[in-house]
Amino acid sequence: MRLRHKPWAEDKLKAYPQYVVQQPEQWKGKWGEVFQNDQPLHIEVGTGKGQFITGMAKANPHINYLGIEMQTSVIVSALDRIIDEELPNVKLLCVDGSKLLEFFAKGDVNRVYLNFSDPWPKKRHEKRRLTYKGFLKLYEDIMVNEGEVHFKTDNQGLFEYSLMSFSHYGLLLNFVSLDLHKSEFEGNIMTEYEEKFSEKGQRIYRCEVKYPR
Amino acid sequence: MRLRHKPWAEDKLKAYPQYVVQQPEQWKGKWGEVFQNDQPLHIEVGTGKGQFITGMAKANPHINYLGIEMQTSVIVSALDRIIDEELPNVKLLCVDGSKLLEFFAKGDVNRVYLNFSDPWPKKRHEKRRLTYKGFLKLYEDIMVNEGEVHFKTDNQGLFEYSLMSFSHYGLLLNFVSLDLHKSEFEGNIMTEYEEKFSEKGQRIYRCEVKYPR
Repeated sequence: MRLRHKPWAEDKLKAYPQYVVQQPEQWKGKWGEVFQNDQPLHIEVGTGKGQFITGMAKANPHINYLGIEMQTSVIVSALDRIIDEELPNVKLLCVDGSKLLEFFAKGDVNRVYLNFSDPWPKKRHEKRRLTYKGFLKLYEDIMVNEGEVHFKTDNQGLFEYSLMSFSHYGLLLNFVSLDLHKSEFEGNIMTEYEEKFSEKGQRIYRCEVKYPR
Repeated sequence: MRLRHKPWAEDKLKAYPQYVVQQPEQWKGKWGEVFQNDQPLHIEVGTGKGQFITGMAKANPHINYLGIEMQTSVIVSALDRIIDEELPNVKLLCVDGSKLLEFFAKGDVNRVYLNFSDPWPKKRHEKRRLTYKGFLKLYEDIMVNEGEVHFKTDNQGLFEYSLMSFSHYGLLLNFVSLDLHKSEFEGNIMTEYEEKFSEKGQRIYRCEVKYPR
């Protein structure tokens, strides 16, 4: 994503503690307190401008959503959306996705969404891909048993890589679509990128995988 | 495949016992005797007119190939090709792919090729798909440990189904291409169908899976 620097972003994120979780270490193992209920928690790693996570929150009020995004200049757009919508079941977290273990205990999370993650196409950057085995271990360490990862991308190379990575990690492939927008899949919530790419006629790939017992 | 009935096909297949294996039950557990060497054996289930299997045999003289095709009217075209080429390392077998256990013992086969198999798109025909779990069990029962299945198709639905079927069977996905002819994969031997489909600009999907230890 091309970033426009927004020096005021950090202050704005701090000004809305009801939407942007502050000092998230304190909620490790007790995220229900943040939402003041015991609904399942689904997180999106790399939530960008938040169209997906707020769309999901609106469509599924019985689930809590947490959008995680490291870039302050981007996540403020997600914040604006949440302020507008006044949704009780979605919050934001401005941290590095590789540090999830600092903020979540085993079982805190029920599902991880990865949408249009950076493909990091160079082999030497493999470890940065959010479907690299190191990340799959991270998600496992914070999720319930049989937790799920739902992944979509327009990047063919990243999708191929991810299918192999999931397989070698022992994850079960429960759903796969090689052309999501022409498939029978219902209830798809599009990200900002997804709208742009699919307008150009580009394919969207999507899959759901589950950790074994 | 649209079939033209060829009443003379059966006689022709019998006339070339050096290329079309007769009474294959007798070779169960000792296929090396058929080829008179101990090279690895790769089989193609649904070999059609034989362009793939003869192409592979020519490119890989250190491997034995067996093309399996139930339709006599189709396999005679493969026979013509083999007669022309005079290749020592490829033979044909005119039997039903679901009866492999009658002809092969555990460890007889090193690799199974599935190319452009019938997609059987209706759910009630799932069991006929050559990547259905019943078939995956069959291949396992005749292959060496860590044997491989190499699969390609132009049918998106069959490929999606197969990825899920492989995953649930516990197979390891070692290679996947979602657009084979635009990939870096080298040494691809095209089938007759593949030539036709790819000329129309249609994508070819391909993967390699391995049975676990």
